Amino acid sequence: MKRIGVLTGGGDAPGLNAVIRAVVKTATNDYGCHVLGIKNGYDGFTMPGGVFPLTAADVRGILPRGGTILGTANRGNPYARKVIVNGKEEVIDVSSDIVQAIKDQKLDALIVIGGDGTLRFAHDMFLRGIPVVGVPKTIDNDIHGTEVSFGFDTALNIATEAIDRLHTTAESHQRAMIIELMGRDAGFITLHSGVAGGADVILIPEIPFKLETVARKVLERRAHGSSFSILAVSEGARPIDGEVTYNRPGDQVFVPRLGGIGQKVGEYLESAGIETRVTVLGHVQRGGTPSAFDRWLATRYGSSAVRVAAQKHFDRMVALMNGMITDIPLLDAIAIPKRVDVNGDAVMTARGIGISFGNE
Amino acid sequence: MKRIGVLTGGGDAPGLNAVIRAVVKTATNDYGCHVLGIKNGYDGFTMPGGVFPLTAADVRGILPRGGTILGTANRGNPYARKVIVNGKEEVIDVSSDIVQAIKDQKLDALIVIGGDGTLRFAHDMFLRGIPVVGVPKTIDNDIHGTEVSFGFDTALNIATEAIDRLHTTAESHQRAMIIELMGRDAGFITLHSGVAGGADVILIPEIPFKLETVARKVLERRAHGSSFSILAVSEGARPIDGEVTYNRPGDQVFVPRLGGIGQKVGEYLESAGIETRVTVLGHVQRGGTPSAFDRWLATRYGSSAVRVAAQKHFDRMVALMNGMITDIPLLDAIAIPKRVDVNGDAVMTARGIGISFGNE
Amino acid sequence: MKRIGVLTGGGDAPGLNAVIRAVVKTATNDYGCHVLGIKNGYDGFTMPGGVFPLTAADVRGILPRGGTILGTANRGNPYARKVIVNGKEEVIDVSSDIVQAIKDQKLDALIVIGGDGTLRFAHDMFLRGIPVVGVPKTIDNDIHGTEVSFGFDTALNIATEAIDRLHTTAESHQRAMIIELMGRDAGFITLHSGVAGGADVILIPEIPFKLETVARKVLERRAHGSSFSILAVSEGARPIDGEVTYNRPGDQVFVPRLGGIGQKVGEYLESAGIETRVTVLGHVQRGGTPSAFDRWLATRYGSSAVRVAAQKHFDRMVALMNGMITDIPLLDAIAIPKRVDVNGDAVMTARGIGISFGNE
Amino acid sequence: MKRIGVLTGGGDAPGLNAVIRAVVKTATNDYGCHVLGIKNGYDGFTMPGGVFPLTAADVRGILPRGGTILGTANRGNPYARKVIVNGKEEVIDVSSDIVQAIKDQKLDALIVIGGDGTLRFAHDMFLRGIPVVGVPKTIDNDIHGTEVSFGFDTALNIATEAIDRLHTTAESHQRAMIIELMGRDAGFITLHSGVAGGADVILIPEIPFKLETVARKVLERRAHGSSFSILAVSEGARPIDGEVTYNRPGDQVFVPRLGGIGQKVGEYLESAGIETRVTVLGHVQRGGTPSAFDRWLATRYGSSAVRVAAQKHFDRMVALMNGMITDIPLLDAIAIPKRVDVNGDAVMTARGIGISFGNE
Repeated sequence: MKRIGVLTGGGDAPGLNAVIRAVVKTATNDYGCHVLGIKNGYDGFTMPGGVFPLTAADVRGILPRGGTILGTANRGNPYARKVIVNGKEEVIDVSSDIVQAIKDQKLDALIVIGGDGTLRFAHDMFLRGIPVVGVPKTIDNDIHGTEVSFGFDTALNIATEAIDRLHTTAESHQRAMIIELMGRDAGFITLHSGVAGGADVILIPEIPFKLETVARKVLERRAHGSSFSILAVSEGARPIDGEVTYNRPGDQVFVPRLGGIGQKVGEYLESAGIETRVTVLGHVQRGGTPSAFDRWLATRYGSSAVRVAAQKHFDRMVALMNGMITDIPLLDAIAIPKRVDVNGDAVMTARGIGISFGNE
Repeated sequence: MKRIGVLTGGGDAPGLNAVIRAVVKTATNDYGCHVLGIKNGYDGFTMPGGVFPLTAADVRGILPRGGTILGTANRGNPYARKVIVNGKEEVIDVSSDIVQAIKDQKLDALIVIGGDGTLRFAHDMFLRGIPVVGVPKTIDNDIHGTEVSFGFDTALNIATEAIDRLHTTAESHQRAMIIELMGRDAGFITLHSGVAGGADVILIPEIPFKLETVARKVLERRAHGSSFSILAVSEGARPIDGEVTYNRPGDQVFVPRLGGIGQKVGEYLESAGIETRVTVLGHVQRGGTPSAFDRWLATRYGSSAVRVAAQKHFDRMVALMNGMITDIPLLDAIAIPKRVDVNGDAVMTARGIGISFGNE
Repeated sequence: MKRIGVLTGGGDAPGLNAVIRAVVKTATNDYGCHVLGIKNGYDGFTMPGGVFPLTAADVRGILPRGGTILGTANRGNPYARKVIVNGKEEVIDVSSDIVQAIKDQKLDALIVIGGDGTLRFAHDMFLRGIPVVGVPKTIDNDIHGTEVSFGFDTALNIATEAIDRLHTTAESHQRAMIIELMGRDAGFITLHSGVAGGADVILIPEIPFKLETVARKVLERRAHGSSFSILAVSEGARPIDGEVTYNRPGDQVFVPRLGGIGQKVGEYLESAGIETRVTVLGHVQRGGTPSAFDRWLATRYGSSAVRVAAQKHFDRMVALMNGMITDIPLLDAIAIPKRVDVNGDAVMTARGIGISFGNE
Repeated sequence: MKRIGVLTGGGDAPGLNAVIRAVVKTATNDYGCHVLGIKNGYDGFTMPGGVFPLTAADVRGILPRGGTILGTANRGNPYARKVIVNGKEEVIDVSSDIVQAIKDQKLDALIVIGGDGTLRFAHDMFLRGIPVVGVPKTIDNDIHGTEVSFGFDTALNIATEAIDRLHTTAESHQRAMIIELMGRDAGFITLHSGVAGGADVILIPEIPFKLETVARKVLERRAHGSSFSILAVSEGARPIDGEVTYNRPGDQVFVPRLGGIGQKVGEYLESAGIETRVTVLGHVQRGGTPSAFDRWLATRYGSSAVRVAAQKHFDRMVALMNGMITDIPLLDAIAIPKRVDVNGDAVMTARGIGISFGNE
C-alpha cells in the first residue's frame, strides 16, 4: 500500500478531524504509506488543488478540534448536480467524471468518511472499480451495523447540559420549557439526552404524538405539585393528527429552522394556559471539541480503516460492535436506516421512570 | 440585629443561591442573627407558610446550584395585581397588605435580591417604613451604579461556548450562522459574547441596523474568501426601517419566543442567497451552575448586604465598583437603566477588530 | 414484589444517584413497590436509622448530582471488621449479623450497586438466602461481563479535558508534562484519555515500562522538532526494573497520594535534562455531575435491575453488552478482573498513531 | 504609525492569543499598520527568523486557543543570560544586543505582553530608547494598577470546577480533600476559587498558618456533623512555625512539583487521624481555552495597546479600572507587587461565611 486518499462528506460531526489524524498517522507510521487529502468531499477530485499531500505535520493539533480540515461537499448529489450552463441551471450526472478522476489518482485505497449518502456513493464507486473503505459518520446514530458513531456522544453531552440549565430556571418560574433538538428521522439524541437530562416529555419522529396528550401531561404534573415541565422535542417529531409546515414553500430538502415543531408545541401549550419558553439548540449540537469517547472512537475508526485497506478488504465499513472495532459490508450499513425501537428496552425504561412520549 | 428577612424577585439568575447562602452564613456566624426566608418574592409575606426560618443547614450545598431555593414571584406588580373576584378578573393594589405583613414580622432588616422592578418596590417600601437593603440582580447588566452583577458572567460563558461551537460547523459548510441571545433592551450579553466568540456581525438594541447592511457584510466576507459568517443577535435588536412583530397580538409584556428577530434576519439572508441556520439559545443562558466569578461576586454581595444592614444603612444597594464592594442609594440604581455606550471603548474595540453592527 | 432495598457500596462514581433514582421511579411507577434506602452500604442494616423509606420525592433533582445520597461504607470488609472492644482493636466477622438484619427486613429483593468487593459479598449473601440483584459500579472499567459501567465516561472526559489544557502550556514552554490518573490495577482511563487527549507516552499497570525508554522517547521527539511531550500515567503503572514505594510504611491498603509514580517519572526526566511538570488529578476524576452517557447507562441499569428483581432472577448482575442491557450471573462478573488487553486492538491503535508505552 | 512589533514573555496565560489577534486586527483595520511578530519573547529579535510579518490570516481562529502562537522566552533574564562559551557555562549580559536588534527593526512601537519581569525589562528598554507599550499578563493577579488581567478568570473557573468535583466525593466518603492551587506569592486564585467552590479552609502565602489549627478546624467540623472538609491550598502557603522544603536542593528558581505544601498538610492531617486525599492541579490551570471574560478583556487590551501606541504614549501599560480600559505608567505597575489584603473585604467575607485561614 503506497498511496491512499481520505475525504469527508456530508454534515459536520465532532470527531472528523480525529479520524483524519488517525488515518494519516497510522498509514505513515505503520505502513510507510503516502496519504492524500481530498477537499470538499468527492468534488475535490475534480477541483484544481482539490487533491493534496497530507502529512503528520498537517494533522498536528487537530485532534480536539471540531469541523473537518478537509471541508465537506455542499454541491449535492453527483448523479444530479445543478450547474449553470449558458446562464441556465441544468441538472447533470457528474459521477463518471468523479470516478475517472479518482482512477487517475491511482490510489491503493480511498477512505470515505461520511453518512448514508456518502457511503452509498462509495459502494457505487466500488462497483465501478474504486477500492473504497467506509467510516460511518452519523451524529444522529441512524446508521445500521454499528452501535454508534462519533459525534453522537458529543451532541448528547451538549443537549443534556442545555436541559440541565433549563431545569433550574423552570423550577424557579413554574413554566414549561421546550428544547428542540437534532433528529429529522431518528430520535436517538432526543431520547438519550431527554432521559439523561430528566425531561418529563420526549417527542421523537418514531412516535407520533397528540398535542392534547402533551398538554395533559404538563397539567397533571402541575396538579401533583410539579410546577414545571421540561419537553425534549426532536426537530422531526410530528403530531398524529394534522400537518406541521415548517419549511419554506418549495423546499426540496428539509431545512431545520425557526418556526418548527418546538414552536408549534409551545403555541399549543400557551393556548392551554401554560407559560412556555422555547430553545432551539440547532447547530450548536454539531460543533466544537469532541467528547473523550468520540475522539477515542474516531481514532480507532481511522486506524482500523487503514488496516482494513491494507488487507484489501474493500467495499466494507468499519463499525463498533460490543465495544470492539470490526468491519462489515457497506451494503449492510446502507440497506436500511436505524431508528429508535419503539418497543425496545430504552423506550420502556423511559416510560418506566415516568416519561411521556405524548401518545399514551 | 436579631432578625432579618431575605427574598428573591424577578427572573432567574445564576448566583441567587450563593447570595442567600452568604446572607444566612454571615448573619448567623458574625451577628448571631436569625434569618427568615421569604417564598416567591414579596408574595411570601402574605402566603401561608411563606415566611420560614432559614438556617445554615438549609443553605448547605446550594452554592453551585442555579435557580433560587426561595422561588421568585410570578404574580406581577403589587400595585396592579390581577385577582379573581366572584369569577371575574380584577386589578387591585395589594401593596399595603404586603407592607403591613412585612411590618408584622418586626424585621430588623429585609434584604431584597432583585432587578429593577423589585428594587423599585423596595425603595417604596423603605419610604413606607421598611428597613430594606438591596442586592442587584441583572443577568443583562442593565442596572446602574454597579460594574456588573452576578449571572452576567455565566450567561456570557454559555453564549460564548455556543458561538465557539457554531464556528466549526460554519467553517465546514460555508453558511451564515445566527445565534439569538438574551437582551431585550440592553445588548451587553450579545456585545461581550460576540467579541469573545469571534462573531462577524453583532446586532444590539442600542444600535438599530439595516438588513441590507448585514447581508452586504456577509457577502463581502465571502468575496474576501471567508466562506462563513457568525451573527450574534440580541432578542431586542431592531432594524432601522420597518417593524418586526415578534409577539402574539395583544401581548402587554414582551415574551421572547420563536419567530423573533433571529428568524427575520435569517429569512432576509436566505432571500439574498446566503444559506443560513438559526439557534435560539433562550433560557439556557439563565440556568445552571454559576461561574466562579458569579459565585464570588454573589457571596460578597450577600455578606456585604448583612454588614450594611447591621450598620442600619437602609434604602441602599450593594454594588461592585473598581473590583470592590460598596453601597449606593437605591434611587441611584433605579433612576435610569444602563445601556451599551454606542460611542464607548467597547463598541470602538469591536469595530476596530472588524465587527459590523449593521449600521455602517 | 412489594418491598425492595437498595444500597451503594465502595468508592464514589458519577451516576450512583441516577441508578438510585431509576430504581425508585421504576419500582414505584411500574410495580407499585415500596423502596427502602440503606445507608452506608451493608452497614445501614445494622445501624439505627440505617434503613428508611425512599420515595419519588426523595430522588427529585438527584439525576445530575455526583456522589450518592445513600453514602457508602467505609468500615471495610464485613468478614474482618475492625472494632474497639474494651479499648483494644479486634477483628471480628460481622457478616452473620448483617445477613440476619437483612432477613429481618423481609425484602423481596435487595439491589446492590457496587464494585468487585461489594458484589462478591452480594453473591455470598445470595448463598445465605438473600434475593440480591447486582449493579456494577467501576469507574476503572475493571469488571468483567459488561462493556463498561457508569462513571468511566465521566472520568474520561475530565482526564481528557485536563490533558487538553496541558497541551497548550506544554507547547508554549518546551516541557514534559506528566499527568497522573486513576487506575491502580487497570489502565483503561489512562489508555483511553491518553489517546483521546493526544498523549505521547502512556504508562499503565498492564505494561511495565523502562524509565530510560520513556526519557528516550521524549528526547527523540525533541530531536524531531516536537519541543514538548505529554505523559499520561496510571497511578498503578510500574517500571520493569526496580521498586517504587509510594505508600506509607505499613499501609495495608493502597492510598494513592503525592509522591507516587508521576513524581518518580518526573524526577527521572529532570535528571535527564528535561524540564518537567506534574499534575495529580486525584479524586477530581470521581466527582461531579455525570456525563450524558453515564446518566443514560445508570438509568437503564437501575430500571433494568428492578425488572430483573421482579422476574425473581437473583444472584445476577445487570450488564451492558453490544449497547443493550442484559443480565449475567454475579459469579461471572467477579470471577476474574478485567484488564487492558496488551495485544488488543486498542493498544495496537495507540502504537499505530505513534504513542509509546515505555516498553519498546 | 507604519510598523509595530508584538511579543509575549513569561509563563502561559489563557488569552495571550486573543491579545495578539486584537493587536493585529486593530493595527491593520484602523491604522493600516504593518505588524511584526517576535518569537520567544525578546530573544526573537536576536534569533534567525525570530521577527516575521503577522497578518490577519495568521491570527484567524486563534481567539479560543490557549497558549501563544509567538512562544515565550525560556532562556531567562537578559541581564544574566547563561551561555556556553568554549564548553563552559558563563553568565553574560545580552541586554545591549537585544536593544540594538530592536532599534535595527525601526519599529514605531513595540507591544510587550508579559508579567512583572517582562514589563520591568520593557521599562528599561524605554529608557534606552525603545517606544514600548505594556500589556499586563498575570494569571495570579499580582500586578498593581489593574483590577485583574486575562487568564485569572479562566484559572478560577478551572480551580472552582475541580473543587466542585471534590465536594461530591468528599461527602460520600468522610474525608479531608486537599487541592493545591497556583500562587507562589499571591493567594488570589486560592482565595477566590476557595470561596466560589465552598472550601472550608483556605491557606494562602499572605497568611501563615498553623498545622494544628487546620487539623482542629477539620475535627471541629466533624464534631458538628460535617463528615468532610475541603482545603484549598496555594502552592506558596507556609506554616508559621517551621520550614517546608519543597524544592530540589540547589534550585535557584521555584519549581512547583509534587512533595509540596499540599502533601505536607495531608501528612499532618493523616497523623491526626483524618483520612485525606490530595490533588495537585498544576499547569491544568494555565492551559486551554480562555473564559469569555478573559477573551473580552484580552481583546480590549490588545486594541487599546494599539491606540495608546498610535498616540505615542510610551512607557505605559494598559489596565482595567472600574470596568474601563485605561493606561498607567509602567513604573506604577511594577513598583510593588499586588497581594491579598489580609484585612480587606474579601478575607473578611470569607471568614464571615465560616472559612478558616488556619491562623485563628
